[in-house]
Amino acid sequence: MDKTRLEAFSDGVFAVAITLLALNLTVAGPGHESLVRQVVDRWPSFLAFVVSFFAIGIAWVNHHSLFKSIATTDRTLLFLNLTLLLFIVAIPFGTATMATYLQGGGADAPLAAALYAALLEGMALSFAAIFVWSIGDGKRRYRPLPARGVGRALVRFSIGTLAYLVAIALAFVNAVGALAFITAVAIYYVVEHNPSTSAEGPTRTDQGGRSADSPLITADHADFVFQ
Amino acid sequence: MDKTRLEAFSDGVFAVAITLLALNLTVAGPGHESLVRQVVDRWPSFLAFVVSFFAIGIAWVNHHSLFKSIATTDRTLLFLNLTLLLFIVAIPFGTATMATYLQGGGADAPLAAALYAALLEGMALSFAAIFVWSIGDGKRRYRPLPARGVGRALVRFSIGTLAYLVAIALAFVNAVGALAFITAVAIYYVVEHNPSTSAEGPTRTDQGGRSADSPLITADHADFVFQ
Amino acid sequence: MDKTRLEAFSDGVFAVAITLLALNLTVAGPGHESLVRQVVDRWPSFLAFVVSFFAIGIAWVNHHSLFKSIATTDRTLLFLNLTLLLFIVAIPFGTATMATYLQGGGADAPLAAALYAALLEGMALSFAAIFVWSIGDGKRRYRPLPARGVGRALVRFSIGTLAYLVAIALAFVNAVGALAFITAVAIYYVVEHNPSTSAEGPTRTDQGGRSADSPLITADHADFVFQ
Amino acid sequence: MDKTRLEAFSDGVFAVAITLLALNLTVAGPGHESLVRQVVDRWPSFLAFVVSFFAIGIAWVNHHSLFKSIATTDRTLLFLNLTLLLFIVAIPFGTATMATYLQGGGADAPLAAALYAALLEGMALSFAAIFVWSIGDGKRRYRPLPARGVGRALVRFSIGTLAYLVAIALAFVNAVGALAFITAVAIYYVVEHNPSTSAEGPTRTDQGGRSADSPLITADHADFVFQ
Repeated sequence: MDKTRLEAFSDGVFAVAITLLALNLTVAGPGHESLVRQVVDRWPSFLAFVVSFFAIGIAWVNHHSLFKSIATTDRTLLFLNLTLLLFIVAIPFGTATMATYLQGGGADAPLAAALYAALLEGMALSFAAIFVWSIGDGKRRYRPLPARGVGRALVRFSIGTLAYLVAIALAFVNAVGALAFITAVAIYYVVEHNPSTSAEGPTRTDQGGRSADSPLITADHADFVFQ
Repeated sequence: MDKTRLEAFSDGVFAVAITLLALNLTVAGPGHESLVRQVVDRWPSFLAFVVSFFAIGIAWVNHHSLFKSIATTDRTLLFLNLTLLLFIVAIPFGTATMATYLQGGGADAPLAAALYAALLEGMALSFAAIFVWSIGDGKRRYRPLPARGVGRALVRFSIGTLAYLVAIALAFVNAVGALAFITAVAIYYVVEHNPSTSAEGPTRTDQGGRSADSPLITADHADFVFQ
Repeated sequence: MDKTRLEAFSDGVFAVAITLLALNLTVAGPGHESLVRQVVDRWPSFLAFVVSFFAIGIAWVNHHSLFKSIATTDRTLLFLNLTLLLFIVAIPFGTATMATYLQGGGADAPLAAALYAALLEGMALSFAAIFVWSIGDGKRRYRPLPARGVGRALVRFSIGTLAYLVAIALAFVNAVGALAFITAVAIYYVVEHNPSTSAEGPTRTDQGGRSADSPLITADHADFVFQ
Repeated sequence: MDKTRLEAFSDGVFAVAITLLALNLTVAGPGHESLVRQVVDRWPSFLAFVVSFFAIGIAWVNHHSLFKSIATTDRTLLFLNLTLLLFIVAIPFGTATMATYLQGGGADAPLAAALYAALLEGMALSFAAIFVWSIGDGKRRYRPLPARGVGRALVRFSIGTLAYLVAIALAFVNAVGALAFITAVAIYYVVEHNPSTSAEGPTRTDQGGRSADSPLITADHADFVFQ
């Protein structure tokens, strides 16, 4: 089954990218400043690691939710998915660059933070493109999304996409402020209490069974958890 | 089936993190001290590699056991699992930092060892949180755990969590002692002869079949192998 | 089922290799040239990252398509597949080497670009070898390819293989020109509008079902998407 | 099914380790010796990359074959498997160390080559231990191996284990000779024409079916392909 291998490959890329984030965590070792001082001085690396870890983790949840409702694959989807993964794979680079410039200071910190936000914006746009693909033609989803659901999804995708545009603009005003804003966005998505989710509660699945309707989070609303 | 993809993603993260541990193994090459001397001097790197390798390996076994009994997924579980993986992914950093300071000596070796133990403590607490989640509500496990089983599990999770607290405290007395203690804890979990496990012996599984009751190690007791 | 584990292992290698490409993306940090200048100067690294990302991504799609029609495995296939993966795994090295020399200039840029093209040529030849293996003996595919299909496939594999030979030759005339040519080849494969694909459109697959005939892209033509 | 997740985790580790081998491939870039000279000088890195790539690849095939016949899992198997993976994960380190010392020359090249061979010996012994575990108790394999098969398997495991002992000894006589010997062993395993394999030829498997008897290579003999 094709979608399965597409998901397996994507899961692999998410898992490697999220783990490579930790390669940015380093200290200089003995003979330099005290370890406490080093860790304190490098707070941007540690904060950016945690924020990017949850950003990629949430993106993985999103990917899962979005593809669960998709019934077909074609070349367009494959390359939209590759584009999404391109941004995911670049996030450790963006994280390291932003952390280096926030720590070192200087005139380029705003640009480095904007670059980081731009990668997240690219990710958000890729998710939106996959969603738009999925509602085209009417046969790409297991269950067609009703018009109201499409509208709500598009509003939410637009809000997510807008949030990172705000972060890019904010970076040029205050680089640390942009990181704080992105942190807040990530926390929002983690703690967000989607009413329709809590209403239904977790779905019980039989261990050996399969259920197109057993969402990780509530179906139909699942697509727009993050953006 | 959702849990399957959650497990596949987690397996990927465990596999990448356990393999990245080996990036900390390096020697300076010819033109420096003799190879024997370099390897001897860097004993903390090699010992810490082996200890962390088995720590992550045991954590993977634990993860497997814990999730085998879980019947449902929800947002809370997803983010508890992400938090667990955050600590797993940070272990190579903690391992490298501790090894560098144990080798180089100096005043910060205790702090570096405590940092390493703190990452393991974070992992242990994350496992405990997932276990507590799993017994909530009564529908999250395939088979509800009897009250006696819950009590025993909580005692064992507490012991595991306590062990790493002891390691953190010990680190400030003697950094090498803390590593020795953590090594002993890992050996204990590897060789531990769980009576109920040996009584039942390995479970035979049909190749093509599925069996919710064919544990890697004995069911119900499986959850608290490590912590 | 053997083929499944062969595919899973290959997917893992593709996923790690495509993610490691991003390790070549680095900037020197504050205290050096401006960030804009650094990114502009390092354009070969960023362009080569994107080109190699899609080259490996397309190779993964190809791998998927080629193996979908394969019904048996033997030692020969295993080692042809390992040879293919050897070239995939070496692509991040080839990408980094080419980018370094294109950026730094000097007499060796042509050779570095030729090395990169040679790795892609090795990949293309490995795919062709697996295809030739698959049509041998008549029992290795689920559905034997008709003579006309074999002929067309061989023509297309030859064209793909030839393209990278051209790139190798071109590298010695103009290194940047070779990268531009390889970029064009990648774009061609991404946007290529295979008539038979569009005619059938995406295939709907049941979520729980299995269908040997539900290609990612159109069956029978799937094998020679890339080469 | 437990064995499935054990195999998936192991596949992930194999895939990451085989891909990380390529991190040892580097050239110094423009401004140093010519690229041709650098590649020629670093022949040990390139040869060792290819040898280790096929060594890990063959180990993956072996792992597949060995686990295919295993019907049960227990703690002992889990930790034997972790020990095997410990050696697999350390191979990129051993490869880099040997290549550095073979290239740089000096008194420690023999020791570096012996270290590399010792990691392969550890891998071979781990495979042998898993095989011995599998024939214990009589219920751990799907089909018990007849006494003659056990004897032949043990002879072959002993030969494999012996080969790397010879390589360790040879390293102290001639480091390059040891690498040549290990290369020859790898080539032998790749091209080895197992009579029982060729007699049966590849096994046709139904795409959706499962067959405990459809070996990657011939069953029963599969376990001792490599060691």
